[in-house]
Amino acid sequence: MCRWLAYSGSPVLLEEVLLKPDHSLIDQSLHSTMGAETTNGDGFGIGWYGDHETPGTFHSVEPAWSDRNLRDLAAHVRSPLVFAHIRATSGSPVQQTNCHPFRHGHWLWMHNGLIGDFTRVKRELVLAIDPELYPAIEGSTDSEVFFFLALTLGLEDDPPGAVERAVGLIEHVGRVHGVAHPIQMTVATSDGASVWAFRYSSEGKSRSLFYSTRVDTLRAQHPEVAVLQELSDESRLVVSEPLGDLVGAWNEVPESHYGVIEDGQDELLPFAPQAPG
Amino acid sequence: MCRWLAYSGSPVLLEEVLLKPDHSLIDQSLHSTMGAETTNGDGFGIGWYGDHETPGTFHSVEPAWSDRNLRDLAAHVRSPLVFAHIRATSGSPVQQTNCHPFRHGHWLWMHNGLIGDFTRVKRELVLAIDPELYPAIEGSTDSEVFFFLALTLGLEDDPPGAVERAVGLIEHVGRVHGVAHPIQMTVATSDGASVWAFRYSSEGKSRSLFYSTRVDTLRAQHPEVAVLQELSDESRLVVSEPLGDLVGAWNEVPESHYGVIEDGQDELLPFAPQAPG
Amino acid sequence: MCRWLAYSGSPVLLEEVLLKPDHSLIDQSLHSTMGAETTNGDGFGIGWYGDHETPGTFHSVEPAWSDRNLRDLAAHVRSPLVFAHIRATSGSPVQQTNCHPFRHGHWLWMHNGLIGDFTRVKRELVLAIDPELYPAIEGSTDSEVFFFLALTLGLEDDPPGAVERAVGLIEHVGRVHGVAHPIQMTVATSDGASVWAFRYSSEGKSRSLFYSTRVDTLRAQHPEVAVLQELSDESRLVVSEPLGDLVGAWNEVPESHYGVIEDGQDELLPFAPQAPG
Amino acid sequence: MCRWLAYSGSPVLLEEVLLKPDHSLIDQSLHSTMGAETTNGDGFGIGWYGDHETPGTFHSVEPAWSDRNLRDLAAHVRSPLVFAHIRATSGSPVQQTNCHPFRHGHWLWMHNGLIGDFTRVKRELVLAIDPELYPAIEGSTDSEVFFFLALTLGLEDDPPGAVERAVGLIEHVGRVHGVAHPIQMTVATSDGASVWAFRYSSEGKSRSLFYSTRVDTLRAQHPEVAVLQELSDESRLVVSEPLGDLVGAWNEVPESHYGVIEDGQDELLPFAPQAPG
Repeated sequence: MCRWLAYSGSPVLLEEVLLKPDHSLIDQSLHSTMGAETTNGDGFGIGWYGDHETPGTFHSVEPAWSDRNLRDLAAHVRSPLVFAHIRATSGSPVQQTNCHPFRHGHWLWMHNGLIGDFTRVKRELVLAIDPELYPAIEGSTDSEVFFFLALTLGLEDDPPGAVERAVGLIEHVGRVHGVAHPIQMTVATSDGASVWAFRYSSEGKSRSLFYSTRVDTLRAQHPEVAVLQELSDESRLVVSEPLGDLVGAWNEVPESHYGVIEDGQDELLPFAPQAPG
Repeated sequence: MCRWLAYSGSPVLLEEVLLKPDHSLIDQSLHSTMGAETTNGDGFGIGWYGDHETPGTFHSVEPAWSDRNLRDLAAHVRSPLVFAHIRATSGSPVQQTNCHPFRHGHWLWMHNGLIGDFTRVKRELVLAIDPELYPAIEGSTDSEVFFFLALTLGLEDDPPGAVERAVGLIEHVGRVHGVAHPIQMTVATSDGASVWAFRYSSEGKSRSLFYSTRVDTLRAQHPEVAVLQELSDESRLVVSEPLGDLVGAWNEVPESHYGVIEDGQDELLPFAPQAPG
Repeated sequence: MCRWLAYSGSPVLLEEVLLKPDHSLIDQSLHSTMGAETTNGDGFGIGWYGDHETPGTFHSVEPAWSDRNLRDLAAHVRSPLVFAHIRATSGSPVQQTNCHPFRHGHWLWMHNGLIGDFTRVKRELVLAIDPELYPAIEGSTDSEVFFFLALTLGLEDDPPGAVERAVGLIEHVGRVHGVAHPIQMTVATSDGASVWAFRYSSEGKSRSLFYSTRVDTLRAQHPEVAVLQELSDESRLVVSEPLGDLVGAWNEVPESHYGVIEDGQDELLPFAPQAPG
Repeated sequence: MCRWLAYSGSPVLLEEVLLKPDHSLIDQSLHSTMGAETTNGDGFGIGWYGDHETPGTFHSVEPAWSDRNLRDLAAHVRSPLVFAHIRATSGSPVQQTNCHPFRHGHWLWMHNGLIGDFTRVKRELVLAIDPELYPAIEGSTDSEVFFFLALTLGLEDDPPGAVERAVGLIEHVGRVHGVAHPIQMTVATSDGASVWAFRYSSEGKSRSLFYSTRVDTLRAQHPEVAVLQELSDESRLVVSEPLGDLVGAWNEVPESHYGVIEDGQDELLPFAPQAPG
């Protein structure tokens, strides 16, 4: 599968979240310990919000561990909201248009997992995408089809509801086609202000997902960790697997839940797919 | 647009048809004189038939003029039937899955031109593709959709008829959506035994297409040209623009015509799109 | 050969200087009108100074006209000092380590032109490079060897003198080896504060080089051009060929001269190679 | 480090040795069990001898496991002598010119291991390369410098002697510069007729190297294994780690030994570096 990371908080150089942690995402591209595959070398991508309404993205088919442009970009770009994704393909070609995060307008989307038996259900799912949105599909992955289904079903107005409806549709179509486990997912999406992170799978054995403890709490517990002094209280990471092993720093998102990271109180709520009416 | 070449005849090293001619296809990638664009640097591909029923393909996103693997491959692979294509994208991404020739089973397909206003008609055309074939689409080009329409409409049994029906459908859908000129095309396709080459456009101003004079005729006219001594009488090239300027060597395919190159007598026949019933 | 651009002035989004001008550098990658080649499709690179002392670089082997990451990067990165270079190789491989601008510490360097008969003189020139610097050479171009010779001969302390000594050495070694025209060059280099731009060739027929007229002058002449309102008086471009055709905007650097762009008065001075003692 | 394979024997489709074995080299690119690294994803290369005196090579910066061109090439190219190499860089950039096998004239060369502290000794080693050969160096790896040293010291006339002299020189230069373990290596080289495979390291703990048992012996032991019926008695594989686990099929090359595979009796002989006079 894949590994991903979402950061929201004080503006940081991308390298602070991508490269410098002990068990960084780049390190995970070679040595993932909790992923379905230990190597995530089938391209990668980053997305970040800056001055523009539209976030920037950088996609590469090279393994993240050897991409020299990534290191330079990460050392020079500063952002308060960063997505990063390293890919282990479940079959679709390694090409930039298949690299996450996907972007539509000011939305970003990334996914770890898969739509079960995708070649069997792909056509019916693509048909369910809004014809106005259809021409904007650029790649050939299940993850991008999932994103466009969520956009079709209201992502921009009601992200959790739209993802619940998209998952409900994927499960419905899958079951019609005899797919035992139609979806396996952790997903992150953002409009540049909030981040929503979902953990769910049809079989109830979802890929791992963790969120970091509030910075003010960590700072009180670990006054010796310098980087914590520089981050705002509300800075938060959501990750496929923990970066480093700071005691008390990581909390697992429970099965069938999603989190919302935004100004004010973050929330952790139950996630329930909504079958089509 | 693009430039392409199809060769059928005595087995030759690929470099004999790809690299050595004066105004070779590789030269045309930098300096096309008859193309809509002088530079065709958005990737390239070659296809060749060998021992296998399935032809080999090699696709690259690098410009053909600088690809070092192409030169080595061309110097070491020998084939009696070769397709080659250099791309100038009309908008879809530069990635291997968008490089011609496309392959399905033992069929190859390549296209110069475009489906007019493709984003407007893409969804309806994709819907017309056989659902069994649909999951085999790998890229995002108009040319590959065109190939899958032809496959859907009988390419494997009746290539000229299938292409006439596919073009009829594309013109019909285009006109329904208000597209003035729904298609512009030269196309080559092969099953490994015959080659079919088509020239057509909705506006009646098609991209150029040439076929070479029979080798026995050329040999009689040009006894001094060594390479002609080595080729079988029936060896034939079909090209977007002539390679070199050997007098008498090149003949233009007329507007709205197609040629068939095969064992026995080659043919040049009128092409007429067939609108859907 | 190649085309390049150097910008110094008010911080701008890279796209303002790279993509938006009428006859932008990206446009020149397909349609150069003053270059030795019309196509500059053998990779490209950009360098920019930001918060760090070390400038960022982004190198790609794709043609600049189709690189999607470049567009995103250019839309999101802001800098007061930008280098950009599009490459048409004179023989060395198309790979990131051969893309300009080259970087060493906080210095950037880019070159249009060539060292004549480079394979004949390369070893002797490489031997003249400081052994401490030698392991930092990453690619195989004449331009990078030229950069390391300039570093060896004092670039960091006296840029014009070091370039004059490096050119003197290249001419000396070339002539010893019977090379008629040992060097052809326009070069730009920067330490992040000043930009030096050189025009010279052994044969006295140097590649073109232009610098923009002072913004305050242009603004007075062209009150209707909006972008001029936003730039500081001292903002300046140096380019291989003019971007657009604003009357009075471009001035040719004379043969065997170099310019210095820095805080205060810019200067245009004669350039004379210094033969080794 | 890296993994490699050399095949000599009955002409085979490349896929027979590259892709079809249980624990194939491509499989090892993701899951090496005996390598210094489990992932060998920093590019790969193949070389093969055909009709030409000069062997063909194919180099790619993509991981071997996802390269689509490799699969097609391997299914269509047939050769009696094949080299293949998957790379895990010890620092030099991932680019085609750093991919093994390296070629010079009709010689191929590939290396697993490293020259210790290469940046410290590189300049002195490069200086020892024949100035006539120097301009033919294309990449920046220790392995290519090692190849050019062997060429300089007589590879084409006396391969084992030349490699012993090259290793002697590398050890001498390394020790002068205080390098504890100047070389770690398994190397294969060929002129298209014979293959020489070396195992050596300064510290006496060399990377693994295996050669296959003679086909006639294996065929007698395993009459049920179909592929053995098709191979000539003298067909032979030399590999970094065994492909599959056929009992009796694999024999370790002892420390400080090299093997010669050629028409007639193969040989296994001691290897002793020769210090410069």
